[in-house]
Amino acid sequence: MHFASDNWAGAHPKIMQAMTSANDGYWPAYGNSDRDERLDARFADVFETEVAVFLVSTGTAANALALSAMARPGDVAFCHTEAHIRVDECGAPHFLAPGLQMMPVTGSFGKIDEAQLGRAVETVAGGGLNAGRVGMLSLTQATECGTLYAPDEIEALVKTIRSNRSDAPVHMDGARFANALAATGATPAEVTWKRGIDILCLGGTKNGCWCAEAILVFRPDLVDDMIYLRKRAGHLLSKMRFMTAQFEAYLDEGLWLELATKANDQAAKLEAAITTSNSVRLAWTREVNEVFGIVERNRFAQWQAQGLKAYDWQPPTAERELLDENETMFRLVTCYATSDNEVEAFERLLR
Amino acid sequence: MHFASDNWAGAHPKIMQAMTSANDGYWPAYGNSDRDERLDARFADVFETEVAVFLVSTGTAANALALSAMARPGDVAFCHTEAHIRVDECGAPHFLAPGLQMMPVTGSFGKIDEAQLGRAVETVAGGGLNAGRVGMLSLTQATECGTLYAPDEIEALVKTIRSNRSDAPVHMDGARFANALAATGATPAEVTWKRGIDILCLGGTKNGCWCAEAILVFRPDLVDDMIYLRKRAGHLLSKMRFMTAQFEAYLDEGLWLELATKANDQAAKLEAAITTSNSVRLAWTREVNEVFGIVERNRFAQWQAQGLKAYDWQPPTAERELLDENETMFRLVTCYATSDNEVEAFERLLR
Amino acid sequence: MHFASDNWAGAHPKIMQAMTSANDGYWPAYGNSDRDERLDARFADVFETEVAVFLVSTGTAANALALSAMARPGDVAFCHTEAHIRVDECGAPHFLAPGLQMMPVTGSFGKIDEAQLGRAVETVAGGGLNAGRVGMLSLTQATECGTLYAPDEIEALVKTIRSNRSDAPVHMDGARFANALAATGATPAEVTWKRGIDILCLGGTKNGCWCAEAILVFRPDLVDDMIYLRKRAGHLLSKMRFMTAQFEAYLDEGLWLELATKANDQAAKLEAAITTSNSVRLAWTREVNEVFGIVERNRFAQWQAQGLKAYDWQPPTAERELLDENETMFRLVTCYATSDNEVEAFERLLR
Amino acid sequence: MHFASDNWAGAHPKIMQAMTSANDGYWPAYGNSDRDERLDARFADVFETEVAVFLVSTGTAANALALSAMARPGDVAFCHTEAHIRVDECGAPHFLAPGLQMMPVTGSFGKIDEAQLGRAVETVAGGGLNAGRVGMLSLTQATECGTLYAPDEIEALVKTIRSNRSDAPVHMDGARFANALAATGATPAEVTWKRGIDILCLGGTKNGCWCAEAILVFRPDLVDDMIYLRKRAGHLLSKMRFMTAQFEAYLDEGLWLELATKANDQAAKLEAAITTSNSVRLAWTREVNEVFGIVERNRFAQWQAQGLKAYDWQPPTAERELLDENETMFRLVTCYATSDNEVEAFERLLR
Repeated sequence: MHFASDNWAGAHPKIMQAMTSANDGYWPAYGNSDRDERLDARFADVFETEVAVFLVSTGTAANALALSAMARPGDVAFCHTEAHIRVDECGAPHFLAPGLQMMPVTGSFGKIDEAQLGRAVETVAGGGLNAGRVGMLSLTQATECGTLYAPDEIEALVKTIRSNRSDAPVHMDGARFANALAATGATPAEVTWKRGIDILCLGGTKNGCWCAEAILVFRPDLVDDMIYLRKRAGHLLSKMRFMTAQFEAYLDEGLWLELATKANDQAAKLEAAITTSNSVRLAWTREVNEVFGIVERNRFAQWQAQGLKAYDWQPPTAERELLDENETMFRLVTCYATSDNEVEAFERLLR
Repeated sequence: MHFASDNWAGAHPKIMQAMTSANDGYWPAYGNSDRDERLDARFADVFETEVAVFLVSTGTAANALALSAMARPGDVAFCHTEAHIRVDECGAPHFLAPGLQMMPVTGSFGKIDEAQLGRAVETVAGGGLNAGRVGMLSLTQATECGTLYAPDEIEALVKTIRSNRSDAPVHMDGARFANALAATGATPAEVTWKRGIDILCLGGTKNGCWCAEAILVFRPDLVDDMIYLRKRAGHLLSKMRFMTAQFEAYLDEGLWLELATKANDQAAKLEAAITTSNSVRLAWTREVNEVFGIVERNRFAQWQAQGLKAYDWQPPTAERELLDENETMFRLVTCYATSDNEVEAFERLLR
Repeated sequence: MHFASDNWAGAHPKIMQAMTSANDGYWPAYGNSDRDERLDARFADVFETEVAVFLVSTGTAANALALSAMARPGDVAFCHTEAHIRVDECGAPHFLAPGLQMMPVTGSFGKIDEAQLGRAVETVAGGGLNAGRVGMLSLTQATECGTLYAPDEIEALVKTIRSNRSDAPVHMDGARFANALAATGATPAEVTWKRGIDILCLGGTKNGCWCAEAILVFRPDLVDDMIYLRKRAGHLLSKMRFMTAQFEAYLDEGLWLELATKANDQAAKLEAAITTSNSVRLAWTREVNEVFGIVERNRFAQWQAQGLKAYDWQPPTAERELLDENETMFRLVTCYATSDNEVEAFERLLR
Repeated sequence: MHFASDNWAGAHPKIMQAMTSANDGYWPAYGNSDRDERLDARFADVFETEVAVFLVSTGTAANALALSAMARPGDVAFCHTEAHIRVDECGAPHFLAPGLQMMPVTGSFGKIDEAQLGRAVETVAGGGLNAGRVGMLSLTQATECGTLYAPDEIEALVKTIRSNRSDAPVHMDGARFANALAATGATPAEVTWKRGIDILCLGGTKNGCWCAEAILVFRPDLVDDMIYLRKRAGHLLSKMRFMTAQFEAYLDEGLWLELATKANDQAAKLEAAITTSNSVRLAWTREVNEVFGIVERNRFAQWQAQGLKAYDWQPPTAERELLDENETMFRLVTCYATSDNEVEAFERLLR
């Protein structure tokens, strides 16, 4: 029962196969081969717009580099209190975007509340030089709570920051972007640049690649610096083709959405099992491939002893009151590789 | 009626005089004169212990350099939600201590709550590599709300972080440290190194100097790096003697405490005026030279039109509920130069 | 005729196979699986000593992170004028080790001259606070000129800096370390920690891996920070196993030395062809898998038109006088994949 | 005989007086008073153009902040091998402009050689992503050798870098800018923005102020960021008026040029003494307030024993061959406060 994270599996066989196939012959290094360059066109097709593509090997690098491309001296980034960039990347955004400030904004179930964002922007805007400048907005789709922003919600948040700074850049952490698309059927364009997203960090690693993250820059004025930001942070691979090959296969015939759908579906079964159980309850409604539940501490420890690989979860600040003293929150994550056997084993555990 | 800040006045005449007196002749530059070096001994007397002294020209530099001397890669600094280092220094600590993370901790009236600190430390300690490391604690004395930590409270907070990391360094932002001492009669040692403070940033600028801030390093292993940290941030003055001269006069015959007492006393009169007024109320009890009040927005605007120089104040997160919709919080700050005339003018305003 | 660089080929079949084999099942992420951890023991065997291993995806990251682990505030790194860290990494060491200074030291054919190093160290040591501190030494083995330091030469340089700062850390950029070993038959230990090297950045990418670089930390006090330095720079892969798998295969049955020997041997043939040619001459004696030659500009352009993939090369400062006005220097690099056909094609070109 | 540096004297009495006069009453903090703002107009008059003025307390801060305002990711700054920013600021430019690379360019007597600059620019421009980008040019006027660029020389160097990057920003380190003007009679405009300088760091400290350095930004697109760069580095003084007052007096009735002329004249006497001496010789012709001489080591030690305060000087790389084995180079610096007595004492020493 491996529900600890979506990065414990290897690469999907088709991804692995693509890497093997790309292994022959000489290619110019550093992403300068024709085939590397054609990947931009692939992404342009998928996103229905011109886009500059920068591949890197970790999601942390993708997010931090994206923020650094957006950051001016004194800028404040607005993000959810629980955002990965704020609490789960060991300070990488502060390091790779030197001097960047972050202003946490609350909101239920991992989603930034529009009114709270408005207030936070006002606080910075009214705080004079001491407070810094209204910088960028960072959204996570799917969120850290496995929830989703509707396209209109994205647009409303973008509008909120841009009512203060009209050209405020907007970043989307899309480590689980494919899961979000798979869950809603939205097109990639509909939930990104059409709603104001300037840079999407599109994850491949958690959804069947082995290390493949794409920084997709929709706003042309952010492109030039990115070329150098990636290199000087040590994130430009010489044998780029292997990352290119992964993404080729990932996008081919919709593999990325197929794998995300598989993960979401397996999570739906786990959710169903929890809903019908007496011993455990859902923390909130599942939307993608993460299920959050609440259970007595003792019982969770038993489950772990019985082979459940999953983390107990620090409840988000806004959801702390959901738990009783003797309870713990836990998170189950599925991925493309989650088997029916594993799901059934969890179902048995609940009985 | 100048109550906007304690940095709108010039230097106290005795400080100015000291600078004039120190103007003659040649002194080795960069703080290497005998007289510069003797200042360490002066501070050692005042603080009853060996201390390494680093003078810089702003409080922001003092705080950020202190934190940078303490910071290891991945470290998280724990500070109050309203701490100057977190929301009022334009990101200087993130910039001068590259990659430093800050974890805000709440607590009433600007003071860190012990239980909240415990929980915050646990969160980081339990968050694995993603969360970074338990780094340093930063306290502000007097706080941003003009309140004070009792010596035992300081010790308890230090103990809280050190129960997780036994050698966690502790920083004190003492921009208004003299006001704190003047209010309580504590000795400098009692509220600093004897309670676990490793670096005190002692402000002179807000209390009669013109630009004189001292980084006092009590912990020997933090000294060597500080020499270079100050220089490479451009904060080593060549004609150091002028800063030395300011501090000589500042400490001489207790001038610093005398000026702080004056400021506190004037603030006490403002507090009394508010307490006895019908149109305005105290936000919380004053302890040093800052008085926080609550009043109807309209009336505050009238006061400003009548010549009151003071800021309306963003209420601390923990005190937001103190205000009604149509009210504003405001802050009055006094300093050594605050005249009786100004105080009386404010009293008349309230009637 | 692909002699542009040793990173234009893919991965060696055995490496590719190892990655495929490691693809099955779940492994704890971030290098925490048993198998990831066993890799340390493998390296300990190869290097005959305890060593902490940090895998990253680029050589630039490896070098810059190594330097950052060594760097104190104000430190100056001494390296060769032509060192990759100084002129070929887009400033990555300055960025990932914030504030780090570099002092170039000359010497023939890419090797630091001992007397010049002594003078450079003295200059910094005698320059007071302005000059910063004597920091670390960085050596490249094989050098940017494809030449080699003898073990005694390494030791002498280490001694030179340590005569000023006894615990000065020493870094070795080993992007082509395997080629160096293969050329000399030295054991890994003999040219690293036994001679004073504290961190070796061991390259795999240029020698048959696809992205696999190992930071090998021999000095225990540099280990703790490295854990966080790697993460906060976005260089900790989640699915670490793929990098682990590459290195397992790389070290297995001496594959790394076998591949390097192959590359060196092919370069030897190119060198021989140049030596016996009338139209071109060697710039200096080849030692590993890089051959530097000098030829008339026109002729080099002809070669390129005839299919030679190779860079004309900016002559090292110390070797500028080797060229006439109408000549250019060029570099040929071989790798494990260089075929006899390619070598023969070059031989035909020279005739 | 104080010839060690021009920062061992105090402030000129008129500067001191101006500070005392500015001490009364309340002024808005952080440079927001009317009087602070009027200083911009003063500088605009002096420089015959609009200019944004940022005062800071050290020359190191001024230079490093100026460079950071100019620097894009990956940029390389071109400067003389002996430039203060490169070897005498403890890495401040690398730290305050994170990731900035510096490319040293040689040239006799502290001045960048035009052909060498051209070659250096070409090297970076032709070096691909690895080498970074052609960034800014930094000139020092007067140079570290106390020599001067003629206006046409400045223009030629600016043209050299801009022939590659047409909008390359150009920085002038003007720690001794007043001495340069006083020596040549050029107007401030003629040797700065009219010749392509975008930011001048104008020193006051070495020429009669106590801590007053002005970053003068002539190029409007560099202004916005500077506001935040200064603050987040801790370099925005709260009681700015004291620095404002220094500069008011400094510029008033040409005091700055008067003081610089005095310093230059005293240096001329020292130069004359050396020229006519048998025991010592000039290293090169003096142009401002620094005299460089060459003498036997023993004799120099004698002089120091007899009360000469002056540094023996590491000869510039390009001038190393001027010395014999048993000789040392030394530097004599005069300032506004250098007395005839001191000059005569030195003359006696030579006899």
